[in-house]
Amino acid sequence: MNTATLLCSCTDRTGIVAALTHFVAEYGGNVIDLDQHTDSETNQFFMRLVWDLRNSALSRDDLPDAMGIVAKKFHNMHWSISFSTPLPRIAVFVSKTQHCLADLLLRHQMGELNGEMALVVGNHEDLADLAEHFGVPFVYIPVHREGKEKAELEQRALLSENNIDLVVLARYMQIVGPGFVEEWAGRIINIHHSFLPAFVGAKPYRQARTRGVKIIGATAHYVTAELDQGPIITQGVTGVSHRDEVDDLIRKGRDIERQVLAQAVRLHLERRVIVSGNRTVVFS
Amino acid sequence: MNTATLLCSCTDRTGIVAALTHFVAEYGGNVIDLDQHTDSETNQFFMRLVWDLRNSALSRDDLPDAMGIVAKKFHNMHWSISFSTPLPRIAVFVSKTQHCLADLLLRHQMGELNGEMALVVGNHEDLADLAEHFGVPFVYIPVHREGKEKAELEQRALLSENNIDLVVLARYMQIVGPGFVEEWAGRIINIHHSFLPAFVGAKPYRQARTRGVKIIGATAHYVTAELDQGPIITQGVTGVSHRDEVDDLIRKGRDIERQVLAQAVRLHLERRVIVSGNRTVVFS
Amino acid sequence: MNTATLLCSCTDRTGIVAALTHFVAEYGGNVIDLDQHTDSETNQFFMRLVWDLRNSALSRDDLPDAMGIVAKKFHNMHWSISFSTPLPRIAVFVSKTQHCLADLLLRHQMGELNGEMALVVGNHEDLADLAEHFGVPFVYIPVHREGKEKAELEQRALLSENNIDLVVLARYMQIVGPGFVEEWAGRIINIHHSFLPAFVGAKPYRQARTRGVKIIGATAHYVTAELDQGPIITQGVTGVSHRDEVDDLIRKGRDIERQVLAQAVRLHLERRVIVSGNRTVVFS
Amino acid sequence: MNTATLLCSCTDRTGIVAALTHFVAEYGGNVIDLDQHTDSETNQFFMRLVWDLRNSALSRDDLPDAMGIVAKKFHNMHWSISFSTPLPRIAVFVSKTQHCLADLLLRHQMGELNGEMALVVGNHEDLADLAEHFGVPFVYIPVHREGKEKAELEQRALLSENNIDLVVLARYMQIVGPGFVEEWAGRIINIHHSFLPAFVGAKPYRQARTRGVKIIGATAHYVTAELDQGPIITQGVTGVSHRDEVDDLIRKGRDIERQVLAQAVRLHLERRVIVSGNRTVVFS
Repeated sequence: MNTATLLCSCTDRTGIVAALTHFVAEYGGNVIDLDQHTDSETNQFFMRLVWDLRNSALSRDDLPDAMGIVAKKFHNMHWSISFSTPLPRIAVFVSKTQHCLADLLLRHQMGELNGEMALVVGNHEDLADLAEHFGVPFVYIPVHREGKEKAELEQRALLSENNIDLVVLARYMQIVGPGFVEEWAGRIINIHHSFLPAFVGAKPYRQARTRGVKIIGATAHYVTAELDQGPIITQGVTGVSHRDEVDDLIRKGRDIERQVLAQAVRLHLERRVIVSGNRTVVFS
Repeated sequence: MNTATLLCSCTDRTGIVAALTHFVAEYGGNVIDLDQHTDSETNQFFMRLVWDLRNSALSRDDLPDAMGIVAKKFHNMHWSISFSTPLPRIAVFVSKTQHCLADLLLRHQMGELNGEMALVVGNHEDLADLAEHFGVPFVYIPVHREGKEKAELEQRALLSENNIDLVVLARYMQIVGPGFVEEWAGRIINIHHSFLPAFVGAKPYRQARTRGVKIIGATAHYVTAELDQGPIITQGVTGVSHRDEVDDLIRKGRDIERQVLAQAVRLHLERRVIVSGNRTVVFS
Repeated sequence: MNTATLLCSCTDRTGIVAALTHFVAEYGGNVIDLDQHTDSETNQFFMRLVWDLRNSALSRDDLPDAMGIVAKKFHNMHWSISFSTPLPRIAVFVSKTQHCLADLLLRHQMGELNGEMALVVGNHEDLADLAEHFGVPFVYIPVHREGKEKAELEQRALLSENNIDLVVLARYMQIVGPGFVEEWAGRIINIHHSFLPAFVGAKPYRQARTRGVKIIGATAHYVTAELDQGPIITQGVTGVSHRDEVDDLIRKGRDIERQVLAQAVRLHLERRVIVSGNRTVVFS
Repeated sequence: MNTATLLCSCTDRTGIVAALTHFVAEYGGNVIDLDQHTDSETNQFFMRLVWDLRNSALSRDDLPDAMGIVAKKFHNMHWSISFSTPLPRIAVFVSKTQHCLADLLLRHQMGELNGEMALVVGNHEDLADLAEHFGVPFVYIPVHREGKEKAELEQRALLSENNIDLVVLARYMQIVGPGFVEEWAGRIINIHHSFLPAFVGAKPYRQARTRGVKIIGATAHYVTAELDQGPIITQGVTGVSHRDEVDDLIRKGRDIERQVLAQAVRLHLERRVIVSGNRTVVFS
């Protein structure tokens, strides 16, 4: 089905849903999925609206302008419209750890992800074979301490050339620089191998073992300038016991990491996530 | 906040959301929660719409008529409007087992349930004290094999006199007769102590132990004429092992039963459930 | 069944299990549950051993001495033997919040807890009625800022007079002083309403909402001198979303808190927990 | 570490653990993991015992004979000893569906499975490439309705030639015949894509959608002569809603299937499972 998806947020007032769904209906669009939320603390209105374009009287090119006119009626409205085709294009950044990449590639091949696996970018060459097996181009861009900035410019150029829409850090063992983060705000998803905000930073499974927790987790979040502090999209957990040594936690954690990351990527690709301050509204 | 909640379903077509939200906005209502679903297999439209009545130009008495006019524009629309006050009135039916009743009473006292605990009806007297401690009237109506029909007429009269809106079977060890079920269709919630459709009927934990399952569960469903076959509202599970004998399953199951039942009651009271054939749409 | 339970830990070496089970068998005891763990990082041996005393040639009074002789053969062995009767005696400390206390009382009444509810101690009088309904004595000991030390002496005297074995802090809103903690080391269980180590200290649900987490939790731990830093016994979690305001987190959290606390109390009462440094070995 | 693992069961009586651990200690073995269970309903004793062979005075060849002498002292003792090396050899049977196979191959490559991926056997050729990418030989043995018996003889010969220890049916779309099942009793693990005993047989996700369940699951079990009735090793579940159409259930189910199957395979390979009638004792 050929659909359009509107994500929007604004200061709440009477009549927003009516205005927006009227706009859709007026041009022959049929709503097939609508989810709405009003945050009572901040008086913010959030909505995700999907409609069938089959009988749309408005071309895809004209939709944004028409929507812009409606949006002006509301205070501080942020909105974006996206279409079911072409699929958003994904670049996955990796180092040496394969499980998250393998999982994303497999899901993509099985048609689970609403996107195009356009590129795998590695600062090591270890996972080139894996990408190749799944038919996805692998680009090796080494990142050395002194040349990090240059490497990131190279990465950003590559993303631009390939019309990438979403960057996924799949256990990519580099901190992304501020310029990169700023350009790609809200479009870089990272998987952190702990249940944030517990165990920020390095070796979270070692930290978890030392603290003696009985549950471990993983967190997928948008990358912001501050390490492991970005808006959380989704989290997952699994039980552990005194029998689990650090290696067991790592093994058990892998299962959670790949599930949580894949879920976050899916939610983003299906346009189900709105960032609001340092939190997310997830219409799932 | 003084709100109205509309639940509706109809054959899908273009413009339903626009028409309904326009209707709300037209009379000064502000949408604060909207969730919509279209079942693509059956082409059925479902919606839950909550709006703030603060500035409503329409009195509560006039709302249904106005809505009726809108509803006629759509094919086969079923709808109901309810208001945040007065709270729906609940009657809990029990036998001798206390955990589900105790849980509901406690949640009610803590303000978790969007309803009024009006009545506890027991076919045994065992739980009278518990009801009394929480200040809820207990009515003892014994149900004997020969006098079951008469007892049910007594129960139904009692429900009617007390303006009950919802009947909750909290481990009530009697099968409710067809007349009762018919009168109260969609308004009796039962908790079955298994993960339906597994282990229908008596002694599900014994059945579970015999089959050697590694997970047990509980199911809250609307009561229909066929035993344990009604539309499922919510289910819960917990892990078990070879160490768990039937008594352990019963103990572990109690935790799931009370949680699942309370969740189903909450969802129903907040008007989040639409029955559709033998399934439910749950806007949670 | 009349049983003895041995909990022990020592530096690992060959022959410990053989020696201890031989000791049990020698005097006619039949092992009915044995769980053993060797921590490979610290080379520590841990074991829980339960045996049937039916045909025991050794009286309960003589058992500890006989065991002491065996224990001396091993390096640094810590051990304790307890018997299935009399049941350990529990004192629950509360303030105004009722859900954890109500849950423990209910479980006790249903026979889920392997202990005697001896006492409820409140620094407020709010929950006296609840304790009374379940037939458990309630003692009101107000705790004021200036008189805290004196109040704690009073509490400790009360525990001593009542032969209490375990203190449960069921949402008790006071920090227990160092003297109390020291005397009762390993015998005070607290429920903290967050998934530790995240959100230590006050208002964890507010903290969770601010950080925008997608899962919240609760943690039962032994109380030590440092706030919320004691050895964790058990943890539980539940999913949350952008729709959940602080009050919803509090409500959802209550379900986890009471389950996690009850589970920890059960594990302790069944002698399934060995504290090892700041972690626990839990033979569940 | 070079270890031996004993799995045994027998009629319970006094002194079994002492005798067996004495046997281990006598020859210089150091117990590193022991888990024991007595089923009070059937009076059956079960134990898993792992010991370090470093200082063993007994050669691996002599161990079974020595153990046999000990075992004779107990009534009806079934036992097996296995060693940490060589690793058990696995054959995975597949049809066209890749997710379970891909998951097992990936886990094997990451060192999560305590076994050797010796062989992939397909009744279709679709997954040959995948096996090849991970360096595992793929054998294509078509199974036609008329030639099924012959194909199974071929399969069994292949397993024998390759010294296979465990057969894993990874969404293998054929019912294994009685001769095969008998020869491989307790050594064929199947993944069924439902929460057994619910939805036995074909199209369980369609059945689940029709019944309107709110949780779906997957079940790993040993294969027996009766379809989907064998002893359950492990089960997993995930929540679903009215939004999930059959395709969504299939997608969500895939995540559970691969996790549950991998977990069952791990448990079996680590010799943690004892079959007891139609149930399992799982020392996890």
